[in-house]
Order: sequence, then structure tokens, then C-alpha cells
Amino acid sequence: MPVFLDTRDADFEAEFVKLLSAKREESEDVNDAVGKIIADVRARGDAALCELTAHFDRLELSPEGLALSRAEVDAEVEKVTPEDRSALEHAAQRIRAYHVRQMPQDVEWTDPEGARLGWRFTPVAAAGLYVPGGLASYPSSLLMNAIPAKVAGVERLAICVPTPDGVINPLVMLAARLSGVDEIYRVGGAQAIAALAYGTETIPAVDKITGPGNAYVAAAKRRVFGRVGIDMIAGPSEILVIADGDNDPDWVALDLLSQAEHDESAQSILLTTDPEFGQAVARAVEARLETLDRRKIAGAAWRDFGAVITVRDLEEAAVLSDRVAPEHLELCVEDPKTLSERIRHAGAIFLGRWTPEAIGDYVGGPNHVLPTARSARFSSGLSVLDFLKRTTLAEMTPEALKAIGPSAERLAHAESLQAHGLSVTARLEQLNREG
Amino acid sequence: MPVFLDTRDADFEAEFVKLLSAKREESEDVNDAVGKIIADVRARGDAALCELTAHFDRLELSPEGLALSRAEVDAEVEKVTPEDRSALEHAAQRIRAYHVRQMPQDVEWTDPEGARLGWRFTPVAAAGLYVPGGLASYPSSLLMNAIPAKVAGVERLAICVPTPDGVINPLVMLAARLSGVDEIYRVGGAQAIAALAYGTETIPAVDKITGPGNAYVAAAKRRVFGRVGIDMIAGPSEILVIADGDNDPDWVALDLLSQAEHDESAQSILLTTDPEFGQAVARAVEARLETLDRRKIAGAAWRDFGAVITVRDLEEAAVLSDRVAPEHLELCVEDPKTLSERIRHAGAIFLGRWTPEAIGDYVGGPNHVLPTARSARFSSGLSVLDFLKRTTLAEMTPEALKAIGPSAERLAHAESLQAHGLSVTARLEQLNREG
Repeated sequence: MPVFLDTRDADFEAEFVKLLSAKREESEDVNDAVGKIIADVRARGDAALCELTAHFDRLELSPEGLALSRAEVDAEVEKVTPEDRSALEHAAQRIRAYHVRQMPQDVEWTDPEGARLGWRFTPVAAAGLYVPGGLASYPSSLLMNAIPAKVAGVERLAICVPTPDGVINPLVMLAARLSGVDEIYRVGGAQAIAALAYGTETIPAVDKITGPGNAYVAAAKRRVFGRVGIDMIAGPSEILVIADGDNDPDWVALDLLSQAEHDESAQSILLTTDPEFGQAVARAVEARLETLDRRKIAGAAWRDFGAVITVRDLEEAAVLSDRVAPEHLELCVEDPKTLSERIRHAGAIFLGRWTPEAIGDYVGGPNHVLPTARSARFSSGLSVLDFLKRTTLAEMTPEALKAIGPSAERLAHAESLQAHGLSVTARLEQLNREG
Repeated sequence: MPVFLDTRDADFEAEFVKLLSAKREESEDVNDAVGKIIADVRARGDAALCELTAHFDRLELSPEGLALSRAEVDAEVEKVTPEDRSALEHAAQRIRAYHVRQMPQDVEWTDPEGARLGWRFTPVAAAGLYVPGGLASYPSSLLMNAIPAKVAGVERLAICVPTPDGVINPLVMLAARLSGVDEIYRVGGAQAIAALAYGTETIPAVDKITGPGNAYVAAAKRRVFGRVGIDMIAGPSEILVIADGDNDPDWVALDLLSQAEHDESAQSILLTTDPEFGQAVARAVEARLETLDRRKIAGAAWRDFGAVITVRDLEEAAVLSDRVAPEHLELCVEDPKTLSERIRHAGAIFLGRWTPEAIGDYVGGPNHVLPTARSARFSSGLSVLDFLKRTTLAEMTPEALKAIGPSAERLAHAESLQAHGLSVTARLEQLNREG
């Protein structure tokens, strides 16, 4: 059973804090193992990759076989049914349309003191995406990582996807094709991250690595951070639904289960103004759990981390939601727009009863790579900005330097950075000589 | 002596790679010590902070003395000379004017399938800035961190600044006042980072921590990352100057020295089309080194990591500069704008002979917190975006769900995520029943 709370209960605050601080994930300590794998790949390159792939994925490769050929990809793509292809194309098109709007503008202006200022965005030159293999091999994740990279203008986009026992996921290959991926390597785990970060004879190093993965992949990303850029380290999925009593309990139950089915550590929370509705949703969850294929996973997540909280009003719901800072927030209420304007911390908001969170996982358009574990307090979902960097621009004229240089000299002196000051002084002296 | 290279030399590529991969910083292994300090502050709060401050800063405090009072700050601010105050106000005003332009727009639109989409930015609720004490206590750094936070709308902005032996830097206090800092604590080191991340009785926890610091501070920031957001971990300063022969060698020498004087690990590189000019700059550096207060530091950095490289033309200079991806790039050439458009990877560009890098450290307007150690390949300087996060928005109408829901159902099925699919199916069935 999930916890049932009511904000009017005397012990509510203590129980809510307990819910917020519940440790949902035991992080496996794989740091030493990962350190060894990275060192091995740095030292021996392709040879290490092939040995590690034989060991972990039971797949014998020569260095020439690390990259999938165009013909191999073609052959896989042909296995995709027309219906699946059409759905994936629909998703890719909508994700692209959303992310194209995120492209920022370069700006330049001349300010009142005559300085020419601005900034300019340029894409990361080469990016690598990790795509998990096996059960969690999601073509939708590939679209969500690769499309922003290509919209940003990344020239070289490589993916690493393990193919345990040589099994390739055709829909992942189609997703790579649709998003314009340039290179596909059948390597996984920490060895794939090491190859992307340091390069091998076959796999040139990239500048930025994104994408989800298991504990080994996450630990490897943390270790290579600094050498290359990385995206966030994603934790288990979360959904928080704010609902009034005027909803179909089964719909909300399915929305809660759609995150619970990801992972036994996932968290699904319902905040409702109507305690009877809360009970009805809990019953609907139990009913749906009986027939779900992933009932073991979803049931464990719901039982261990689920919560149904009765609130006094929607204002209180917004305050509690901000304390959770959920990855996904559904507003199943009469006026979702007004309520959404009260929310300060959430990765993605789904407005109204007709917007199940699952729409956002596939075809809504916004990115489904979102901050978890309360990190929506300080971070955002993946976007084209993750594949761009900003260079600031400044150009002084002699007049601008005359106007602002003396303040720089003064502050350099105050900070005891003499050469800083002199680099301005030398130029100002020349201007004074010229009159 | 710095290295002198010429791209026409047979061994140039090998020498350039050596320069690129020079390890400039020995990272002190303070991880265990930092782990203990963080655990201590988490366990004992203010009491631990006071003990650690007595130990490291030779300053006896009671918990009530951790925060500086308004009167204490006032007293320090009054010590600042009118000239210094005016320079700092000038800098603050220019930095604010630049960063205000970075505020991103919220966007919403309805797409052709009837979905209402968009995103919205909200500020981080509480941020903490670390300000080093002692020699590297720079009021300019405080402005560069605090002003973007306040422009972004951060409500609660706390700074931690160690005051060894009780010595407070009046100009730092004025910078805090000018930037609208809300709370000032006289604690430093890993203990300050622990307090900001986890909170103590006196110091409430924040959501994001930025600002430079020594090895302990950097290690502590890495450790609390995830619990809170952090900015980059800054490495030693770097400058790369691209210059034609038509420059005053002394100006360029001072620009190179203005980074070299920061740190013995700093790096200053000159790329020039004119080998004689390169020699003249090297001579000017030696001449200036004789009279600089920080000649020991600047001399070591120039000798160990400096380089003068003769290039065939500016095109070649741009290519080499991109391989370095410098923190600061000066373009001392006839047509800096055209050359700047060739550059892909740099933290900040200073265009033309009248724009010494030091202008950017203080009063140019752009931020001086910039990516080091080649990380301009994938990251950007500090900006208001570091204190904002983006929440994506999606709202389906029944019609929009009819149009795009079936693709979500299909992909959920392909990914074996049944509840995801059913959450869409349940709603579509209702629409079908309604006809």
C-alpha cells in the first residue's frame, strides 16, 4: 500500500518530510571497476573494446566490426513495420518542431559608452549518445537526445549501443536514421563512455556525451566529466499528479502507473482536494495492477514509494508540489493554466485531463530527458542549449576604452593585479599622447 | 623561456600536441578530508562550523557571529575610498546591463495538430556564492557571480567568505551590497560548501552553489553536486592572443602577463603571423617581468606554460586557436570581426587592439567566469541561465489527443511500456464513445 496522508493531520509535516527524503536508489559501488575499464580503453583502445564486448555482451568482434555498416543498418531498418515507422516519424517530426524553436539568437549591440558587446552561439563539434541495450533500449530516448544535437548543428553525432548476443533493436536503428546520427558503434557500458571520451583507433573522441545508462555508465560519465561535457545523471522516474474530484480515477491511476512501471524505484504521488477521489484512484491502481505485464515492477514502486495526499485546496497542492520539484507534473484540474502559473519547480508540466504524461514521453514535442530527485529546483530538461555553447564578445574603441578603462585600472589595483591594470594603462597613455 | 614554435617546422604537430596536453595542475587529493568535513557539518551544524573556523581561520565565533550584521557590513563599506567605490559601481552597472539582456523569453504556441506547447523560465529559489578569502578575495568575482543571480530573480542570495584572523575585505562587502546579496557568512572552505548544501541552524540550505575556491572548495562542490546545482569547476586562467605584426609588443606582452600573474599554472599563448613580432613580444615580457610585483608567479607561468607560435596566416591561427579552445581569446588584428567569425571554440573573445582582456575582468560587461582547460569545446561562461531553469509545457485538447495519441500508443507498445499506452488508450476510448 502507498502512504495516505492528509495535510490536516497533526503528523503531516513529519510524514511529508519522510516522503521527500526517502532514499529510493541504492547506488551500486562500481567506481573501482569503472576506473579500471576506462584505464584499459585508454591504454589499449580497440583491442580493449573488443575484449570487454566479448566479456560483457557475449559478442566476438574485430575492430572492423565495432561500427555498424550502412548495409547492416539498412537491413535492420527494413524489419520495422510500416505502423511503427510511421509512429516514429510522427514523433521525430514533432520533437524536431519543438526543439527548433529553442535555438537562441546571437546578439550584438553598442552600448552608451561606445563598447561593442554581444554573444554568439556555436554548436559542440562532436557529440556521443549512449543508448542502453536490452530491455531499456528505447528508440524514443534516442530521438530525444539526437534531435536536439542535430538541431543545434552538431556535425558529428556518434551513438554507442550495446548489442548483447549480437541482438540489434531495429526501431533504435530507425530512430538513429531519422535523427541523422552519423556513426553507430555496438559497444556499451563504461567501455563505450571511455571510447567516446578518449577516442580509440576506430572511435574518434567526442566533446560531449549524453544519454541514460546503468550504474556503470553513470559512474563512467561522472569520471570523464571535465575531459568532455556530460548531461545530467538521471535518477528513477517520478510523476506527481494534482487532481480535483472531477476526473476519471482510472485515467489518473494509469498515469501514476505509467511512471511506476519504469522502475521499482520510481515514485508516483497524487495530490487531490477530494479524499474520496484519492481512494478511488488507489482502488483503480490495484485493479489495473492485476492485468499489467509489468505489475511486479509497477506494484513495488507504488507500494514502496507511492503516496496519495489530501490537500485543503489547490494553492496548498502547488506549495507541496514545489517542495517535491517533480520530474513530471500533471495538472488534472478545471483551470490548469492558472494552477501552472503557481508552480515554480517542475521538469515538465502536463496541463489538463487530456494530457497524459505518456504523450510527453513520445510525441508531445518537449524533451523527455528531465531532472529527477528534486533537481528541478536548479536544473532543466535536455534542450538544444546542451549542444551549444555561448562565446561572449567585447570590442572597445579608443573612446570606449577612455570611458571605462580607468575603472578597470582602479579595480585591478585594488585586487593587486598589476599587469591587468598596466595592460589598460599602456593603451590609455598612447591615447593621451595622441591627445 | 616559453616554447617558440613555427607551424612550418617538421615537428610542429608533435610539439603542439604536447602543449595542448600539458598537465598544468596537480590536483591535491583532499577528497577524504573533505568528506569528513562535510559529514561533520551535516551531523553537528553550527557547532562544527565554529570549530572548523577556529581551526582553519584562527577565528573564534559563536553561532550568532556566523552571519555578519548589517552594522558590521556598513562599517566595512565605509572604509572604501570614493574612487574605489565609484569604479566598483561603474563595473556593477555595466555587468548588470549586459546580463539583463540575457534574460530568456517564455514561449507558448499552438501547433498544427492543436497541441498547446511552450516553456517557461523560473529562477532558482536560493543560491549560495563562495567568495575566497585572503589573497584571492576578488570583489570583481563577487559581482560576476551575484549580479547574474539577482538579474535572474533569485530571492535568497547568500555568500560565504572566510575571514582569516577576522580580516574582512571592505571592497568585497561593498560588492555584496551593490549586487543585492541577502546574507553574508564568515565561513570558508569545505565547511562553507557543506553548510550551503545541507543547511545548519543558522545557514539555511540553498539550491545552487557557484563561485571559485581552492582544492577543498572544489572537491566539496563536486561532492554536493546532485544535492544542489553547482557551476563549473574552474581551472587555471588562460589567454590566447592572435596578433599580426602591426601591434605594440608591450601591449601584447602585458595582456599575456595579465593572465600569467594569476597563477603559476596559468597559460599565455601568442599566435602571430610575424615571427619578428613574436620575438619582440617575448622580449617585452621579460622587460615587464623585471618590475612586476607578481613577477615570481607570472614568470613561472610564462616560463613553464607560455608559447609563441608563428603561423602562416590568420586562417591557420583560427584553426589552432579552436584546438586550444581558450578561456580568453584576443584578436589583435586589422579586421577582428571577420576573424572572430572563424572562431568556433572560445569562452570570451576580445576584438581589436583596444580591447585588453583585463577590460573583460572588470568592466566590459560580459562575465569573467569562463570555461578553462579546453572546456570551451562544450561549455559556456556563467550567465543568468545558470540561475534559471526551464519547465516545459504541454496541453492536449481532445482533438490534439486524437491526432497524436495513436502514435504514442504505438511507440509505448513497441517499448513494452503498457501503462504508458493505456493512459492514452483510456482517454481515446472515451472520445470514441462520445463520437
